Amino acid sequence: MKIPFLSCSQCRKEFPIERVHPRCSSCNEPLEVIYPRLKKGKIPSRGTMLERYQAFFPFSSIHKDLSLGEGNTPLVLSSVVGPAMGIEKLFFKNETQNPTWSFKDRGTISGLEHALSLGFKKIGTVSTGNMAVSVAAYGTRAKVDTYVLVSHGLPEEKIGPIAIYHPHFIMVEGDYGELYFKSLELGARFGIYFINSDIPFRVEGSKTIAFEICEQMDFHSPDYVVVPVSAGGNIRGILKGFEEFYRVGLIDRIPKMIASQASGCSPITNAFEEGREAIDRVPDPHTIAHAIENPFPPSGNQVLRKLKENGGTAVKVRDTEILEAQALMAKEGVFGQPAAAVPLAATKKLLASGYLKSSDSVVCIVTGGGLKYTAALGHHSFEIKTIPIEKIEEIL
Amino acid sequence: MKIPFLSCSQCRKEFPIERVHPRCSSCNEPLEVIYPRLKKGKIPSRGTMLERYQAFFPFSSIHKDLSLGEGNTPLVLSSVVGPAMGIEKLFFKNETQNPTWSFKDRGTISGLEHALSLGFKKIGTVSTGNMAVSVAAYGTRAKVDTYVLVSHGLPEEKIGPIAIYHPHFIMVEGDYGELYFKSLELGARFGIYFINSDIPFRVEGSKTIAFEICEQMDFHSPDYVVVPVSAGGNIRGILKGFEEFYRVGLIDRIPKMIASQASGCSPITNAFEEGREAIDRVPDPHTIAHAIENPFPPSGNQVLRKLKENGGTAVKVRDTEILEAQALMAKEGVFGQPAAAVPLAATKKLLASGYLKSSDSVVCIVTGGGLKYTAALGHHSFEIKTIPIEKIEEIL
Repeated sequence: MKIPFLSCSQCRKEFPIERVHPRCSSCNEPLEVIYPRLKKGKIPSRGTMLERYQAFFPFSSIHKDLSLGEGNTPLVLSSVVGPAMGIEKLFFKNETQNPTWSFKDRGTISGLEHALSLGFKKIGTVSTGNMAVSVAAYGTRAKVDTYVLVSHGLPEEKIGPIAIYHPHFIMVEGDYGELYFKSLELGARFGIYFINSDIPFRVEGSKTIAFEICEQMDFHSPDYVVVPVSAGGNIRGILKGFEEFYRVGLIDRIPKMIASQASGCSPITNAFEEGREAIDRVPDPHTIAHAIENPFPPSGNQVLRKLKENGGTAVKVRDTEILEAQALMAKEGVFGQPAAAVPLAATKKLLASGYLKSSDSVVCIVTGGGLKYTAALGHHSFEIKTIPIEKIEEIL
Repeated sequence: MKIPFLSCSQCRKEFPIERVHPRCSSCNEPLEVIYPRLKKGKIPSRGTMLERYQAFFPFSSIHKDLSLGEGNTPLVLSSVVGPAMGIEKLFFKNETQNPTWSFKDRGTISGLEHALSLGFKKIGTVSTGNMAVSVAAYGTRAKVDTYVLVSHGLPEEKIGPIAIYHPHFIMVEGDYGELYFKSLELGARFGIYFINSDIPFRVEGSKTIAFEICEQMDFHSPDYVVVPVSAGGNIRGILKGFEEFYRVGLIDRIPKMIASQASGCSPITNAFEEGREAIDRVPDPHTIAHAIENPFPPSGNQVLRKLKENGGTAVKVRDTEILEAQALMAKEGVFGQPAAAVPLAATKKLLASGYLKSSDSVVCIVTGGGLKYTAALGHHSFEIKTIPIEKIEEIL
């Protein structure tokens, strides 16, 4: 085929780009978009994210009015934490400055564009956090019926920030893991395009993170990119972005990827460390980094395959290390949710182990904003002084 | 003088640019930066906010490493709310995509740059909300001692998002209004540069909102810009930005400004409606839009002067209208805190009154993110369905 198509990430079976089901009919592994004719070209300096990178997407036209201004996030050179840790070229890719304050918006608009190109009038997602917020926001903007399926018992504090966008908000009683697969079946029956965690077009959206990093570093790749890993779609996308820019000659090497997980839920890191080719389900996941608490990531095996090919690694960090990293990152002026601090915790650990050297350039992906989960603030201790106004002088 | 200087916004008395005290020594009205030699020039497409607009700032050099990626926020054309209200050219300038999720970051970096250019090693602010967060974030990044003075009794939920940046956090018992003036006196005594609400360099930071709007509209000005008004610094800055671009010939007209306030605290709108030249203190302020609940705005009189000169207007809206606007704006995919929804509520009111016409182009400034004040979500009603997994089919 000369036009973009879908290919199984494991067995390479091919499917037409119009396919909605995100997994291979033979081996059940995730599909990915393949572009037989990618070409180097000038990337426009203006336009929406999809407009600027249209040459790397299979869309013949872009609904630019659906954009909320996703992407185009800062790459912040560390001026406090990096030097303190002995690493001069530490960067934070601050995805908290997206329209719904997480990286999810990139994959949502990409998935939405695919859904619209196929004529869908309904979209949905299965999520309890950032993805639900993002899909609800873009769904209302696109004026499509939007179905958000969450598990029964979702905490009150998570409900409002999703519900404010007025999706069809459905709490489902029953096994939450089952719901992911059930949603695909329901989507096919009821004409709902489910933009779930690691579907091929979410991965396509995430690759723009890599594109922007390349542009922001004047087309010099960093040595390492550290990503918090849950379902596995984001790290797949970021690596795919570097691979595609390399393929067309925009960069001359591909950075090594570091998959970072929380010790309380690290199915990919466990398998990587044990040299296994497939992940095992984590029986009792528990971490403060709720946004990456996925016990059986649907792209887990593919992340393992890609890490091996790429030469990167996987690491896990404890909740105490995550909270410490959250505080450290705030010293930089960057306040991420706990999951977003996992890359910095991983960087610190890998520096201590000698895997990373102080001369390496490292980009940490800060995936979501600190206000997403303010309960974590209760784990930090703060010094606050109280004083009558007439006595302020005494403590200045 | 040929170099930039400070000038009293009322009596035009001149002061050197190195002055820190933000008010006139004669009439106590706010000062502003005057540029005798502004010139039209090409604005670089890349760089930090201060680098791109350096020609419109008095800084001979920029500490680019202090930038967290402030500014460069999306201008979103309404595709849902505007058409529904009968106005085709309604835009949202989404300031919630700043590093600390409010417009304050623009004025903070501008004030910080001024402080550093004068050799200050300490900065501070008197604030309970967005400004405290912003100053704390930039202060830690700049490695300067940062003093945040808040009033005693600040709710717990507001403390953590400030304290995470680890400023010197001081709760002051006593009159909060007094604290603003006290801070200026303390700043002079202890060498602390207080980047308070409407100081000249906060106003300079805010003018970049106008610059970006002009660029995003291909240098065609909108007809109206609607701004939530608290201290008055932001609307002053935005208007100043349009005036400066007009002066150098980058745009051919200055939009009319609309100051929007909450009925429960509308000192500027009250004075404007009664044709007064000075504001009165609001005795008992109360509104859900806490971020603009300032009973005696320090730039109030200057806003009145500028509205008269500009030909704009002032309007107030009730809390019910603010909440309705917050929900309407979310239908666009833009979730702002209540204060950030005040411009949309004002737009709706002015359309109904006939002041705005459906052919007008209107930009609403969405000043801060919805996650800043999640308590407001309790005022909205949401429909959430609960269903067992085996019965989902029934409601799709």
